[in-house]
Amino acid sequence: MNTPLRLGIAGLGTVGVGVLRIVQGQAALLAARCGRPITVSAVSARSRTKDRGVDLSGLGWEDSPVALAQRDDVDVFIEVMGGHEGAARDATTAALRAGKHVVTANKALLAIHGQSLAELAEDQGVALRYEAAVAGGIPVIKALSEGLAANSMTRVLGVMNGSCNYILTRMESAGLSYQEVFNEANALGYLEADPELDVGGIDAAHKLTLLAALAFGTRVDFDGVELEGIGRVKIEDIRHAADMGYRIKLLGVAQMTEHGLEQRMAPCLVPATSPLGQLEGGTNMVVLEGNSVGQIVLRGAGAGEGPTASAVMGDVADIARGLVIPAFGQAARSLHSAPRAISTSQAPFYLRMALQDKPGALAKIAHVLGEAGVSIHRMRQYDHIDDSAPVLIVTHKTTRSALDQALAAMNATGVVTESPVALRIENV
Amino acid sequence: MNTPLRLGIAGLGTVGVGVLRIVQGQAALLAARCGRPITVSAVSARSRTKDRGVDLSGLGWEDSPVALAQRDDVDVFIEVMGGHEGAARDATTAALRAGKHVVTANKALLAIHGQSLAELAEDQGVALRYEAAVAGGIPVIKALSEGLAANSMTRVLGVMNGSCNYILTRMESAGLSYQEVFNEANALGYLEADPELDVGGIDAAHKLTLLAALAFGTRVDFDGVELEGIGRVKIEDIRHAADMGYRIKLLGVAQMTEHGLEQRMAPCLVPATSPLGQLEGGTNMVVLEGNSVGQIVLRGAGAGEGPTASAVMGDVADIARGLVIPAFGQAARSLHSAPRAISTSQAPFYLRMALQDKPGALAKIAHVLGEAGVSIHRMRQYDHIDDSAPVLIVTHKTTRSALDQALAAMNATGVVTESPVALRIENV
Repeated sequence: MNTPLRLGIAGLGTVGVGVLRIVQGQAALLAARCGRPITVSAVSARSRTKDRGVDLSGLGWEDSPVALAQRDDVDVFIEVMGGHEGAARDATTAALRAGKHVVTANKALLAIHGQSLAELAEDQGVALRYEAAVAGGIPVIKALSEGLAANSMTRVLGVMNGSCNYILTRMESAGLSYQEVFNEANALGYLEADPELDVGGIDAAHKLTLLAALAFGTRVDFDGVELEGIGRVKIEDIRHAADMGYRIKLLGVAQMTEHGLEQRMAPCLVPATSPLGQLEGGTNMVVLEGNSVGQIVLRGAGAGEGPTASAVMGDVADIARGLVIPAFGQAARSLHSAPRAISTSQAPFYLRMALQDKPGALAKIAHVLGEAGVSIHRMRQYDHIDDSAPVLIVTHKTTRSALDQALAAMNATGVVTESPVALRIENV
Repeated sequence: MNTPLRLGIAGLGTVGVGVLRIVQGQAALLAARCGRPITVSAVSARSRTKDRGVDLSGLGWEDSPVALAQRDDVDVFIEVMGGHEGAARDATTAALRAGKHVVTANKALLAIHGQSLAELAEDQGVALRYEAAVAGGIPVIKALSEGLAANSMTRVLGVMNGSCNYILTRMESAGLSYQEVFNEANALGYLEADPELDVGGIDAAHKLTLLAALAFGTRVDFDGVELEGIGRVKIEDIRHAADMGYRIKLLGVAQMTEHGLEQRMAPCLVPATSPLGQLEGGTNMVVLEGNSVGQIVLRGAGAGEGPTASAVMGDVADIARGLVIPAFGQAARSLHSAPRAISTSQAPFYLRMALQDKPGALAKIAHVLGEAGVSIHRMRQYDHIDDSAPVLIVTHKTTRSALDQALAAMNATGVVTESPVALRIENV
């Protein structure tokens, strides 16, 4: 075990550079903890000449990540390029085929191709690890798949996209509109090249599907996520929520129900005083609930060079120490396809709509809610703005299905001036 | 890897019974996740006939835990008896000598004999694991020694004794004295057979030393902990703290300083709105700070059958999957003995004392503080009760050494009617 473990790093963006910095800066500590040195043999990136503030001298260079993945002097292929097709997928596949361990920070790749990659890794007897793909520096994959391995998990949930949480908390603290904060965050480089990955909830949903697979022994099912982004949350919603003692978070929840696996990612109201409600800025929080352990809450930085590289190198340390376990916690071919439980679980909902300034408009809304079996807990109508009146409703517990039926009927009444916003109230 | 992993369980108290329940109730799940069945070959406990609500039929029985540790049909010896000498130490040593892996929930055993046991385990090439020894169901040992293995840790801290946290939060919520809640907790069975292990901070200090060894690569040094229990905290202290926006928690902190390793376990004031300040009842919280990852916060149940057994079985799952790493994260003989940094770090302190009803008493106190270089941030004198006046002082930042000097001088003035209570204010 004194032979070095040799890495090949594909991608020298923030994370790749962070990994290099740790390997170079913590060599003695890593060798002591892993019982063997960790070295970098070669790297691959788009530009060979760009100054990244790290020393690449003495490292091999490959223009092609596939070539890097196949090098004889690479034991572990570190994929930190991103994207679920193209180079990332090709190189990861090539690495596994060549019998290399793979460590990746790529949630999209695993959410879409996790099953086939996990099968390939197992056939090859190598590790496919992805701690950095979920909740940045928080060792949540490890906690769920190893620490809590003896639990039948009942639910996993959390705030797993720091950019969305930044936008929502900044809207509240600065009193700015969604669009203003979005533009600000985009200018600061806080958002993905395609911002819809963040604000559309896609990135967070990718992460949720990986946690769900680990928790419930199911195949990763990204298409099974009920998905809603934060783009329709207005500063008024944040204020109304605050008035009622809630804050709005982009919350992911996965649970096994009698109807099948429920996976949803949507802005929700959570109690302002709860740990989730108090989460500020780019911080992530994941809650794991198991039949023996009860509830475990993990909090930490969800992104950034240091935290993400820490997670990548945690996986590398495991491999250096000889740990090879299936990517999703059990043999990939033993994972089952759970039926999708869509919109079946009950919760109270927050509704905001704008009604035409006509007699009987509010009565019509109350009527269609009643017809759909949705009972009203609180309702408030505000002063008219232009020709429409903002109305706020909090329902008693209902299903999203019943609510969607009511929302469709509402739109058909002709008295709502824009499609209502409906946010689940999650008392976690 | 399809051969079963066979356990021998020494101790059938709450934790041992919990482990048996998991092995029996989650057999299919454990086999799927570990790639092999987990079975129990034999058990050992004080009474063979006691009804524990679990099925022992078909299991071997040993009156002697040492004999259990040496059985040919035991691969992993589960030590859940407790106590750092006698049967627990003898049987653990016997198991390691016989080449068995050991999983223990025994923080005292490892805090006192961890170094020699870790060396023995390594010499034998077996695992010595103790996730259940620290913070119950929270996978903190795993997070620190594996997930964050690439970090140079800067600080670990937390609330790690649920009984003390129960007493302190119950005093506050019910407005009861320490002694009243202590008696209540003792009657409810919340305290160890020797309650001083809990309320004296010893149990929590045992845990802190294990985290410190893992974090800093140092030998476990229980005698190096500055230790103070919660027995002198009065309901008045809790109220004064609340008035200032703080709550009192038995807080453990370990950090590497320029003077050496600082380890302290004492009741402290923490901000009421901080995650630590909001911790209620038996819940534990551990904060891990590393140079790359930043701050990770972990929260969960600190004790109880389910959470503790979950942690034991997490260790068993690791062993079943083939993971054998050094007990303290690096080779035991490579751990270093750090000098002890006692009372050197700076913090503001809360002081409560009772002064004789004599002219100049307060001036004398202010004088001795000034002489010791301790500067006063806030001071308040309350109405006399009998012949003495309660006085409350919040200092500016100072060291515990300087404060202890002032406290000794205060006692020598003859104007304090009982030895002052001094609590550190920790702004975490």
